[in-house]
Amino acid sequence: MSGRVFVVGLGPGKPDQMTPEARAALAQASDFLGYGPYLDRLELSQGQTRHASDNREELSRARAALDMAAAGRTVAVVSGGDAGVFGMAAALCEAVESGPAVWRAIDLHIIPGVTAMLAVAARAGAPLGHDFCAISLSDNLKPWEVIETRLRAAAGAGLVLAFYNPVSRARPWQLGRAFEILRDILPASTPVIFGRAVGRPDERTAITTLDEARADQTDMATCVIVGSPETRIVERDGLPPLVYSPRSAGRPAR
Amino acid sequence: MSGRVFVVGLGPGKPDQMTPEARAALAQASDFLGYGPYLDRLELSQGQTRHASDNREELSRARAALDMAAAGRTVAVVSGGDAGVFGMAAALCEAVESGPAVWRAIDLHIIPGVTAMLAVAARAGAPLGHDFCAISLSDNLKPWEVIETRLRAAAGAGLVLAFYNPVSRARPWQLGRAFEILRDILPASTPVIFGRAVGRPDERTAITTLDEARADQTDMATCVIVGSPETRIVERDGLPPLVYSPRSAGRPAR
Repeated sequence: MSGRVFVVGLGPGKPDQMTPEARAALAQASDFLGYGPYLDRLELSQGQTRHASDNREELSRARAALDMAAAGRTVAVVSGGDAGVFGMAAALCEAVESGPAVWRAIDLHIIPGVTAMLAVAARAGAPLGHDFCAISLSDNLKPWEVIETRLRAAAGAGLVLAFYNPVSRARPWQLGRAFEILRDILPASTPVIFGRAVGRPDERTAITTLDEARADQTDMATCVIVGSPETRIVERDGLPPLVYSPRSAGRPAR
Repeated sequence: MSGRVFVVGLGPGKPDQMTPEARAALAQASDFLGYGPYLDRLELSQGQTRHASDNREELSRARAALDMAAAGRTVAVVSGGDAGVFGMAAALCEAVESGPAVWRAIDLHIIPGVTAMLAVAARAGAPLGHDFCAISLSDNLKPWEVIETRLRAAAGAGLVLAFYNPVSRARPWQLGRAFEILRDILPASTPVIFGRAVGRPDERTAITTLDEARADQTDMATCVIVGSPETRIVERDGLPPLVYSPRSAGRPAR
């Protein structure tokens, strides 16, 4: 008898930003797989088993989930934010494609969530209010040259940029290099937003400009948004500024 | 006495994909502004007033909301999906910037939501599992040449593309032209997903390839996702195929 796999985006971290659909899926599951800090957000009840793994083990975690489901279990694989955006959903699909034929018959149910850049954007105003891209700065799984090409293409065409995985202990220099590249393409006054743990008690959000942006303000849990040449900062007395990308757009940067 | 404005993303349409945070904000509001079909999703209680407007009146709607808040009302301005992604949040920021100074003191609270492309992606697998962009195909507010430049830059650099506002009665040809441009850049076998009203009773999701994709399968309520050269389709017996963009990526298309 085949079970099922729910792949669940938990949202950015604030409990009331997790959808009721995600919560209902979690309530049905017997086994929970994910990176430890995401599993820490859940209150499991009796009969629900936690299987934490490290954050570089996505594919083996996906295979373990499919194995359990093939044995009849109802499994929840969790990601922060949205599981489809640099989360576990792609790892599950990859595991199904490369795995035994029986895994293709498993009911795989992917539940979307509020991905980090949306929460960071909402906190700052509407920096993603016009055309934008989401790029992972991790070169664990792609050559750094590909990332550079994408940064130049996207910024040059006038897209706002949201960076996931901007730095880690093993990758200290990538975000700084990305800022250098962008300084050749975008105005010095381009708004930059650092959003860390938005909605959680340890939230830190900072708004600056490209010429002032420093990579050492950042860690793994930070999402960085770099505006387009059209993105604006509206100062407000006694309130944080609003950063937004106008709905109408003119010409690309170059 | 100044009131406040909540700018609320209602999610893709399935009620249990709206966050509890959004629901709590709606419960506090006295006045509801938005495009009629979005307001239709809400059950207002006594004392809550509906102010529907057309879908080309974003800026005047934003100004009306700020006016009401300046008069002490608690106002909810609603968007489908996420208000920060081609939704009302940017219009509110624009109205604040261009409006009277008192509007800068109004408490503007933007509540993120699950934007359409995330729900469409979750239905299909994980097409947004790697670097991607979101582009509006509406040339109401930007020249069509800017859109063409962005399509070429993003597809050429290997980004997956999600299209918002792909067609309307007034803009029948843009999506077809976008497919033509992409056929010069991307393999004919590139997966294309049409997701309409995902999670609602009238949902229609279709998976095809770039050479087979036809613009007349689409309306305003459709989000279209075009893969990168790395995006894959995994066929499954008796289940819909899975479309995903692998976590690891190689080279740009050109």
